[in-house]
Amino acid sequence: MASLSSAPVKRPPCPTYTGDFVFARQQPFALEAGGQLRDVTLRYAMYGTPNAARDNVVFVCHALSGSAEVHEWWSQLFDHLLPLDRYCVLGVNILGSCYGSTGPGQVNPETGEPYGAAFPLVSISDIVRSQALLLDSLRIQRLKLAIGGSIGGMQALQWAMDYPDRVERAIAVGAAPLSAMGLALNHLQRQAIELDPAWQGGAYTDQKPRRGLAMARAMATCSYKSAQLFDERFGRRENRTGPSPLTDPTGRFDVAGYLDYQGSRFLDRFDANSYLSITRTMDNFDPPRSCGSEEAAYARIRAKIGLVGISSDWLFPAKDVHAMATAMQRVGVDCEYREQTSAHGHDAFLAEWPTLEELLKPWID
Amino acid sequence: MASLSSAPVKRPPCPTYTGDFVFARQQPFALEAGGQLRDVTLRYAMYGTPNAARDNVVFVCHALSGSAEVHEWWSQLFDHLLPLDRYCVLGVNILGSCYGSTGPGQVNPETGEPYGAAFPLVSISDIVRSQALLLDSLRIQRLKLAIGGSIGGMQALQWAMDYPDRVERAIAVGAAPLSAMGLALNHLQRQAIELDPAWQGGAYTDQKPRRGLAMARAMATCSYKSAQLFDERFGRRENRTGPSPLTDPTGRFDVAGYLDYQGSRFLDRFDANSYLSITRTMDNFDPPRSCGSEEAAYARIRAKIGLVGISSDWLFPAKDVHAMATAMQRVGVDCEYREQTSAHGHDAFLAEWPTLEELLKPWID
Repeated sequence: MASLSSAPVKRPPCPTYTGDFVFARQQPFALEAGGQLRDVTLRYAMYGTPNAARDNVVFVCHALSGSAEVHEWWSQLFDHLLPLDRYCVLGVNILGSCYGSTGPGQVNPETGEPYGAAFPLVSISDIVRSQALLLDSLRIQRLKLAIGGSIGGMQALQWAMDYPDRVERAIAVGAAPLSAMGLALNHLQRQAIELDPAWQGGAYTDQKPRRGLAMARAMATCSYKSAQLFDERFGRRENRTGPSPLTDPTGRFDVAGYLDYQGSRFLDRFDANSYLSITRTMDNFDPPRSCGSEEAAYARIRAKIGLVGISSDWLFPAKDVHAMATAMQRVGVDCEYREQTSAHGHDAFLAEWPTLEELLKPWID
Repeated sequence: MASLSSAPVKRPPCPTYTGDFVFARQQPFALEAGGQLRDVTLRYAMYGTPNAARDNVVFVCHALSGSAEVHEWWSQLFDHLLPLDRYCVLGVNILGSCYGSTGPGQVNPETGEPYGAAFPLVSISDIVRSQALLLDSLRIQRLKLAIGGSIGGMQALQWAMDYPDRVERAIAVGAAPLSAMGLALNHLQRQAIELDPAWQGGAYTDQKPRRGLAMARAMATCSYKSAQLFDERFGRRENRTGPSPLTDPTGRFDVAGYLDYQGSRFLDRFDANSYLSITRTMDNFDPPRSCGSEEAAYARIRAKIGLVGISSDWLFPAKDVHAMATAMQRVGVDCEYREQTSAHGHDAFLAEWPTLEELLKPWID
C-alpha cells in the first residue's frame, strides 16, 4: 500500500539532520469537508534518530508558511529544549502547502493539470490523519510530544483529540479557533490574491499573482506583529529609500517599506494557491463545532496539554487561547495555560524564543 | 477675488438646513508640500443662521468618507448638543474629496483632464487654510467651536493651531498623528486600489477600480471597528447566503459577507483617487513634525481644547490621543482629555452617540 521513499531529497545539511524524505501513498484520501485526494504525498524531515522503543519522537508542526524543515524556522528548539541525543524530531509539510506535500501546485491525477483553485478544502483533521499514515509507515506508534505555534498548534491539539492514545503531550502556542477579526483578515488576504489579474482564477502558470500574494503577506504581517512593535521599530519615520511621503504622493513611510519588503521576499518562497488553501484550513479549525460540542471535542483527550497565549497576539488573542484552556479543563483535560509576555504579537513564538523557552521547559523536562 | 455662489445646490432638505453652497476662488492656492492648485472650489452646507454678531458658528469637520452635509453622517449633533436656535452649523467638504470640492476627480485647468493620480499632496493645514478663505468670504471671523472625529478632529485641531484667534474651542475625537500601524493599514489600502487593473494608474474614467476600492474599504472597516464588536456581532457564524465556508472553498463566514457588503456599498458613493488622496493627507498629519517641535506646534493654541480617546480604537489608539493631550498641556494649552468607553472601535464617534454626547456636553454648555 504505502510506498516510502527513503532516499533523502536535496537540502543543505544541518548538524543534527538525519534527512528529508518523501512519503507517497497511492490511494484515495477522503476529506472531512467532502471530496477526496486521489493520492497523498508528504514531505518530511527527521532530526536525530528514533530510539529502540521508538518512544522519543517529537512532532514539530509548522505554521502557514513553514515546512518540514524545522531547522529553517524553529532551530532554537534544538539548542536546549529538545536535545537530539535524547529526542528524535519529525517535521511534516502539511497538505495544501507548496513544500513538497500534496497541494494546489501539484498535478491532479484526474485531470493531468495542477489542482489550482480546484484543490479541495482540507481540514486540520485531514492533515493530522495524513500524518498518522506517515507515522504508521515509520512504525512510530506514539509521540512523546506534538508541538507547534499558530496552525502548527492546531495540528498538535488535533493530534491529541483524534489520536488520544498516540500523544503523550501536546503543546500549542498562539492557537485557537480564529475570532471574527481573524476570519476577516484571512478573507481580505485571499481577496488580495484573487484581485491580482495574474491569479487567473487560480490557473496561473509562469506569470504568478505576485502583487496579490505580496499584498496578502503584507496584510498578514500586520496581524503577526503588534502596534507597539511597529511604533518602536518604525514610528513615523520615512522610508530610507525613495521620495518622502511628506512631499511626494509616491513616497512611503518606513513601515510601508518594511511591509513591501516582507511581501516581496515571500514571493520566491510561497505559492498563492497554497496561501488560499491553508488560510481556509486555518479558518475552519473549530473542534467544538466540528464535533458538536466542547465535550465531544475535548473530553477524548488523554495527553497532557500545554497552551500558551501571547499577550500582544492580535490574530489569536491570548484571551481566546485561555478560553480554550478553560473549556478543556471543564471537561477534565489535564490542561495548563501560560502566557508569553511579549510585544512581538503572534510572531513571538518565532521571534522571542528565550521567554517562550522558559514557559515550555517545565512541560518538557 | 473670491466668487461666491449663493444659490443652494440640489439636496434633499432637512428641517434645519439652510442650504448647500459652492465657494469658488479663481486664484492659485499654494500647497504646504509644494505645488499648487490652480483654483479652489469648496462645497459647503449651513444649518441654522449666523446671529448678528456672527459669533455662533460651529464648524463640524468631516472624516474620510464624509461630506459637507453634516445631517447625513452626524445628525445626532443637532438633537441636543447644538440646537440650531442657538448655533449655526457649517460643514465644508475637504480638498481631495469627491463631494464637490477640488479633488482628483475634478478637471485640472492646466491639462483639461481630471487630476487623477496627479492630484498633489494636500495637508490638513492646506485644507484648513482653504476653509479660512471660505470663512472670510462668509464674514465669519471667529468660530464658536470647531469639532470633528478622525480626520475631522485633525482639522479642528489644525484650526486651533493655525488660527489661534479665530477659534474659541476645538474638540477632536479619535484623532492624533497616525501610529506606525495606522500608516501601514493606509498603505495597504492604497495598494489594494492600485492593484486593481481598472485603476489604470489613476486615469480610469467609466470603468472604475471597484474591486480595489471595495477591498480598501473592507480593510478600513476592520480598523474602524473592534475585534470585540466583530466577535459579538458575527462570531464564527457562516454567512447567511451562499455556500458554507466549511464545505466549499468559495463560501464565506458572516464577517466576510459583512465586509464585502461594506465594500460594495461604498462604491456608489466614493471615488478611488479621492481615497488615495485623503489617506495621504491623514498619514501626514503630525503637527510637532511639521512645526519642528511640540512647543512650536501647540504653544500657539489659544482655544480651549477637548480631546476624546476611544477605549477600543485600533486606528487612533486612546493612548496616542492621551499623549497628544499631555503634550499640549506641557506647553500650557488649556486642554482636557476624556475617554469614551466603547466596544465600537474608531467608529464609536459615529456609532455610539449617547456616550460621546455625555462627554462633550460639559465642553459645550
